[in-house]
Formats: sequence, structure tokens, C-alpha cells
Amino acid sequence: MQHQGERAPSKNRRDPSSPIGIFDSGVGGLTVVKAMQKELPAERLIYFGDTARVPYGSKSQVTIRRYAHDDTAMLMKHFPKMIIVACNTVSALALDVVERTGRGVPVVGVLEAGADLAVRRTLNGRIGVIGTQATVCSNAYELAINAIDPEIEVFSAACPLFVPLAEEGFVDHPATRLITEEYLEGLLRQGIDTLVLGCTHYPILKEMIGAVAGPGVRIIDSAEAVALSARETLAEAGMLDGSGRRMSPHLMVSDLPQKFRSLYRLFLGADVPDVELVEV
Amino acid sequence: MQHQGERAPSKNRRDPSSPIGIFDSGVGGLTVVKAMQKELPAERLIYFGDTARVPYGSKSQVTIRRYAHDDTAMLMKHFPKMIIVACNTVSALALDVVERTGRGVPVVGVLEAGADLAVRRTLNGRIGVIGTQATVCSNAYELAINAIDPEIEVFSAACPLFVPLAEEGFVDHPATRLITEEYLEGLLRQGIDTLVLGCTHYPILKEMIGAVAGPGVRIIDSAEAVALSARETLAEAGMLDGSGRRMSPHLMVSDLPQKFRSLYRLFLGADVPDVELVEV
Repeated sequence: MQHQGERAPSKNRRDPSSPIGIFDSGVGGLTVVKAMQKELPAERLIYFGDTARVPYGSKSQVTIRRYAHDDTAMLMKHFPKMIIVACNTVSALALDVVERTGRGVPVVGVLEAGADLAVRRTLNGRIGVIGTQATVCSNAYELAINAIDPEIEVFSAACPLFVPLAEEGFVDHPATRLITEEYLEGLLRQGIDTLVLGCTHYPILKEMIGAVAGPGVRIIDSAEAVALSARETLAEAGMLDGSGRRMSPHLMVSDLPQKFRSLYRLFLGADVPDVELVEV
Repeated sequence: MQHQGERAPSKNRRDPSSPIGIFDSGVGGLTVVKAMQKELPAERLIYFGDTARVPYGSKSQVTIRRYAHDDTAMLMKHFPKMIIVACNTVSALALDVVERTGRGVPVVGVLEAGADLAVRRTLNGRIGVIGTQATVCSNAYELAINAIDPEIEVFSAACPLFVPLAEEGFVDHPATRLITEEYLEGLLRQGIDTLVLGCTHYPILKEMIGAVAGPGVRIIDSAEAVALSARETLAEAGMLDGSGRRMSPHLMVSDLPQKFRSLYRLFLGADVPDVELVEV
């Protein structure tokens, strides 16, 4: 399927009209697409979701790094002016692979953006982070936060059931509340005042997470954080698209399962446009 | 890693000492390994779990059929005398692919074995089936059951959260009970007297599922069913291994994530032996 209204890519040059490439292990990164559309409505977005090999979060570092290379190479065919790593697991374990495969194209990782915003928001210097097993085990959020401010204390918890609960649409289910209470209990006991949603699926459960965390905890949505960071980086480089045109995103997936339509609606609150099926 | 105590495979011939190949999308098929060890302790078992691409249940038929081919080809390198498809999703959507790639080696699918046992056990002719989205959408259990007895009524429900709940070890958690009650409600209202666990992960939650279903519902564990069926097929062909030796299974996976050890313990109740990492 050919994306409608696509401009011919300039051969090797990047300019403000070049697209922004975004990838994720699956559909979760669509929360980043949504945040980008809101923050930068004139930009041309190319999204790749590796739906044939999702999820990454429970796999080994070697495998995650191999997949990160493939995903970046897929986007590079479209000569992007920026690559956004919407996948927290790849941001945590393979950002250097993306930078190498991207050969000089600026790379913005959802993890760094979320860490940066959390540091700016915390008042008591106690930040909680929730994410997949791989993200949490990597300690990458702690490293990124402490690189900015070594005084801040970071407390993490893996929440492996949040992705399937979000995808099942168990958004305000009593079982989701029980599981959320159990997952957050240890973090809340530490007196955190800021909680980073360290996985792009988690904004779907934002309301429940916020309700369980209580009004004293500020929730950092890393999809919003990465959109802010992308805007800043492009503005500094004079690479913002000034055309004012609004274009729907070019979507590519490595598998097109039946449930893609319902997930797309869940994430973007809109019907699914044309989707290109690609092989990795 | 070389599997200890492996006999050299006879070049192209199969005989009673040849191994039995078992594959699954991930670790779930280890419930089949466990049932096989109990039912046929003298057989040499070779297990392949496609842990790099797990899960299959939420993916498209095209992708599932491609993976089924790869998995079978991996086992064929070891000249098996039988191939057991421990993955319900592959049994439902790609058994013909396995048979073609297996070039005449007998193939036993976990789905057919479970369907067969359920038909023999039901008294009122009302059978429930639970499984992944892909297995349930395929209607494959209904087709297999009605091929044996067209009078039987089959009621199915997809239970996508059972695999992550099992892998998280939420075996007797109150959230698991709430979710189980919700998933089974429709089936129980239909007055089923037999319930097929149509996914190899589900035996981990067998106790909770049995408690919610109540004493009037017989639970069919398809891992046990496939071991019984394999035994019958080998006995009929005179291919049972009569050596009396006990060998630990040869395990191959396409990825070796950190959590493999804890999952292996959860599934087999034993420490993980040598595991070979292979590329698909």
C-alpha cells in the first residue's frame, strides 16, 4: 500500500521537509505519534511498529540490540531528519545501536526525555519509575536521572501485566486496580513525588495509575516528554517544518494482526488509516 | 552448548531410538515436556521454544505459518521420529505447514489431542474451550470436535491475560480470580461439563480455573492429552523406545532472557539444565 500524499524523498539530503522517523516494538509508540501530532502538527511522521516480534521488554539484550538495528535501518530508507526511539526498552539497552545505524541523524530516546522532564518536575528529589522487566533491570532511568542530578533518589518497579491489561482494554477494571496497588505499593512507601511512566503503553492506564498514586504524585508521561524534546532539538537546528501542511502519519508494521484496528483506536482515538506491511 | 549424553543421529533413517521433537512459541510447551516425561520416560526429547518471537497468539495467520515452518525445520535437523506441536496457535492455523515441512514424519498437534480427549470425557455434549485470541478466532477446536461428533456444542472464550498472569506467577492472586470469573462467566452460563485448556500456559492456572469452574466441570489439560496421543501413535507404529534409559531433554531456544530460569522452574518444578541458543 502506498501512503497517500507522500512527497518524494530528497535523495541523501535532509531538510526541514524531511520526515521524522519513529519506531517502537509494536503499537505502544502510537502514544508518541499522538503526542507529536499535538506538539508538532506540521511535521511529516513515519512510524514503524515491529508487531511481528513484539514484545521486546521480556527478551535478552542481544536480541533487543539486533531488533533495534533492523528497526532503525527500516526508517533510514525514508531519509528522516530525526529518529525517535519510542520504545523504552530500546532506549534503555540499545540507543548506541540506533545512533550508529542512524549515521549522524539526531536520535531522541523516550527514556532520556522522560528522565529529563522528571528531574525538572520533582520537588523532593524522590522519583519513581515503572516499566518493563528489561527497562527496570537495565537501571537506565536511574543512570539518566543521576547524570543530570546525582542527588536524586530513584526507585523502580517492573509492571509486566500493565501492557496486556492496557491492550485488553481493562482500563478501569477492579483487577487492574488490585494489580496497580500491588505494583505501586513499594514506590509509594518510599515517598516519591514524581512517577515516570517508563513504557509507552502505560499512558493508556494513566488515570488508574494516577488514582492509585494519589494527588501528591506527579505523573510523567514519557510520550509527551519526547515530543517536547523533539520540538526543542529541531528548533535549535532550524529544522522545523514551516510548511503548515497537516499530514496523516505514514504507518508501517511488520505484522498486521486482527487486533491492530482496535488497538489503534485505543491509542489514538481515531480510525486506522492506510498501513503498510513491511518485512524485517 | 552441547547437550550431554546425546547419541549421534542416524543419517536419514528413523528408528525407535530417534528423538521426539517438540516445539512451541516459547516456554509454554514445557508443560508438554513435563507430561511426556511422565508418560514416556524412556524417550529422547528435543524441545525448541521460539522465545525470540513469542507470543504467536496475537499475530496474523501469515506470520504464524512462516514461524511454524521455521520451527519445524529447526527440529528436522535432529531427524525426529515424531513432531509434537505444543503450540495451540500453530496447531490451529498451521498444522499443514508442519506436516509439509516434516516430510512424512508423524505430526501430533496439541489441539487435536485435546479435542479428542474432551469428546471422550463429556457427558452432556457441551464443551467449553479457552485459548488465545488467534486460537479462538480460528474456530479450530470447534471444527476438530465436530469432526469427531457433530452433535457436540462448543463454546469458546479468548483469555489473553492468562499467559502474562501465569508468567508473573499470579497463580492464586485475587486479581487472577476476578479475571478468571469474568473470562469463564459466559461459558459457565452455557452449562458446559468439560473445559479444554486450549493453551499450554493454562495448566499453570489449572487450580484457579478449576475452582472458578466448580466441581461440575471436568478440566482437560491438553499437555496430558498430547502425551497420551503420542504414546498411542508410537505404540501402533512399533516406534516406542525400549532402551529403558532416562535422558534429560535437549532444550533449544531462540532467545535466552533472564526470566527463562524462573519460568522453567515454574513450568517443570526443577532447575534448568543446559540450554542451546539457536538462531531462526
